[in-house]
Amino acid sequence: MAIKYAKRMDNIKGSAIRELLKLTEQPEIISFAGGLPAPELFPIESLKEVCLKVLDTDGKAALQYSPTEGYVPLRKIISERLGRLGIDISFENILITSGSQQGLEFCARVFVDEGDTIICESPSYLGALNAFKAYLPKFVEVKMDEDGMKMDELEKALKENPNAKFIYTIPDFQNPTGITMSLDRRKKIVELAEQYNVPVVEDNPYGDLRFDGEKHPPISCFDTKGLVIYLGTFSKIFAPGLRLGWVAASPEITQKYVLVKQGADLQTNSMSQREIATYIETNDIDAHIEKIIKVYRKRRDLMLETMKQEFTNNVSYTYPNGGLFTWVTLPEGIDAADVLQKALEEKVAFVPGGSFYPNPGNENHFRLNYSNMPEDKIVEGITRLGKVLKVL
Amino acid sequence: MAIKYAKRMDNIKGSAIRELLKLTEQPEIISFAGGLPAPELFPIESLKEVCLKVLDTDGKAALQYSPTEGYVPLRKIISERLGRLGIDISFENILITSGSQQGLEFCARVFVDEGDTIICESPSYLGALNAFKAYLPKFVEVKMDEDGMKMDELEKALKENPNAKFIYTIPDFQNPTGITMSLDRRKKIVELAEQYNVPVVEDNPYGDLRFDGEKHPPISCFDTKGLVIYLGTFSKIFAPGLRLGWVAASPEITQKYVLVKQGADLQTNSMSQREIATYIETNDIDAHIEKIIKVYRKRRDLMLETMKQEFTNNVSYTYPNGGLFTWVTLPEGIDAADVLQKALEEKVAFVPGGSFYPNPGNENHFRLNYSNMPEDKIVEGITRLGKVLKVL
Repeated sequence: MAIKYAKRMDNIKGSAIRELLKLTEQPEIISFAGGLPAPELFPIESLKEVCLKVLDTDGKAALQYSPTEGYVPLRKIISERLGRLGIDISFENILITSGSQQGLEFCARVFVDEGDTIICESPSYLGALNAFKAYLPKFVEVKMDEDGMKMDELEKALKENPNAKFIYTIPDFQNPTGITMSLDRRKKIVELAEQYNVPVVEDNPYGDLRFDGEKHPPISCFDTKGLVIYLGTFSKIFAPGLRLGWVAASPEITQKYVLVKQGADLQTNSMSQREIATYIETNDIDAHIEKIIKVYRKRRDLMLETMKQEFTNNVSYTYPNGGLFTWVTLPEGIDAADVLQKALEEKVAFVPGGSFYPNPGNENHFRLNYSNMPEDKIVEGITRLGKVLKVL
Repeated sequence: MAIKYAKRMDNIKGSAIRELLKLTEQPEIISFAGGLPAPELFPIESLKEVCLKVLDTDGKAALQYSPTEGYVPLRKIISERLGRLGIDISFENILITSGSQQGLEFCARVFVDEGDTIICESPSYLGALNAFKAYLPKFVEVKMDEDGMKMDELEKALKENPNAKFIYTIPDFQNPTGITMSLDRRKKIVELAEQYNVPVVEDNPYGDLRFDGEKHPPISCFDTKGLVIYLGTFSKIFAPGLRLGWVAASPEITQKYVLVKQGADLQTNSMSQREIATYIETNDIDAHIEKIIKVYRKRRDLMLETMKQEFTNNVSYTYPNGGLFTWVTLPEGIDAADVLQKALEEKVAFVPGGSFYPNPGNENHFRLNYSNMPEDKIVEGITRLGKVLKVL
């Protein structure tokens, strides 16, 4: 007799990226697939000192159960750093999560009943879409241009979907497109959110990694009614392996997330929370971020220059001012999943675009990551990919 | 305008234990409330060496994203340790979770649609009940005696509830009662599970902490049809702050949990997984467990002896052979929450029993923890509590 699972399990599929991670573990593959930071930049030596310090000075608390909300000094550090971005939020309204993926999953859990609408960018981060799908929502996609989500389309979506529970956006160097939302649209999205009383989930894992151009304030800065939920993470500016992210929101909304966190896993790792707090107290994390930016900027430049030389003219791509990704558009009718098969024969990997759209269609795109591969492999991999594209 | 949350949020309340943890942070309180291990036993010095070793030999991987299933050497260690208990399971069917709380939450997510039945012990672990409640189940409670869940009542519950999705049990030193399921019932529960095709969730956080009496094989040992899901944790034998637990199940069920884990938080902390694996490889964790057992056995003895001397005759309590808790029953009609108010005036805390029952009623019990307080405080706290009970 078959075991009876919950209905939501029919809707949960493995993430294409996570499956690809397995494939790309083969060392001979040049992988532009994952969203992995450059491991050679991890501050391993500093972290050794930090671990000893945490265990010496606060070992018992670092290994014990601790409050669900998170380690207060870390929440205060995050509050201070958000303040510098223009977000005025008390540490009491910051919840530490197990990576920002957990914060994303909580968004659906807190807001979404079966059949409710989630409004998202088209395309959007597939890890978020997969997490949301377990709550059986309807997705309404809003098209983007070079300034991010189109506001007239967003307004139409809000008007047509009174059961919309939140708007999901990655305003800075979006995953997967690398596009940044303009200042005007940041103001407009808050206006619309307030007008329709629909929260905005501002997912900002890459905001600190700007290579060039002017920094925009987060959407949260324009929030006057407590409708914007800000998700941040240390994964891209420190290390993803420690699984440290946060949710910053109004007191009412934060309290809901805290209740959900209690059921989910009681609390985030007590020791890792102290490690990152101690690292920031005893090191210059902004200097570290500058170091990351310098390396990634070089890699982006190299990738885009090589693409310009090696890619055929019928292929277009975005120019990201920061973050980890560029987004490639193939001629209509070409399926990037087929291209991937050919690329893998040449030992190059990327993520086909289809899975970044919650609804079917849009197969003629793919995402390239430039943060994880060293410079020589970027040139070699893009050159090989150019050859694959030539014979389509 | 009020923000619209998901329906499940109406059903999620804060855990009484987590709220109490805050209260009991006041140093003058003698707290028997939490389920906290004794922090003076945490192997802090060994962990310092372990952290350096992990960062020196495997730092890049320890700080990078890694596969959802978990760190293979750790999964192999768990597989080997489960083998010693008689559970024959490959590392491939072990998923590392962020504490066993996460595994519990996943049980409801994988199996439960609104209105489905969860069968549990009466009383049961409130952290599990709270996590399950978010999925809007119906709870059917099965009474216990000194041998655990009553099998005739379990059979009745299975017969009357064809929509039962799983049976939740803590067979060893149950939270909150300290009761251990007998060998016969362990066999019988598997028989019933197979007969009714309903999975069993075997939650075993305390099994390694037996002070006296004969060790029983886990329920999983008798599973022939892949219906038992085993949850384990390092929280009680190493340190809860690292949030490391696991789910061990059939390949089919494990795969479902892995998909859910992907959406929930991608993976468990890469560094902590390596730390515990390295600790076990380079230290004798069984010797460490023996050390814990020795301390907790002494504390249990002291608590029960003091209760015998100081508690009035109309109060009864369980005699746990291991684990962290004893369960106190007051005369009918007395509400343990009222007793707690009086106890707090005497600076003593415990958890009133009501919240360990998913359905209302049963207010005349409370749970006492003996693992977290030093010996002098156990005597002092129980003596004060005895005085409170005398004037009820």
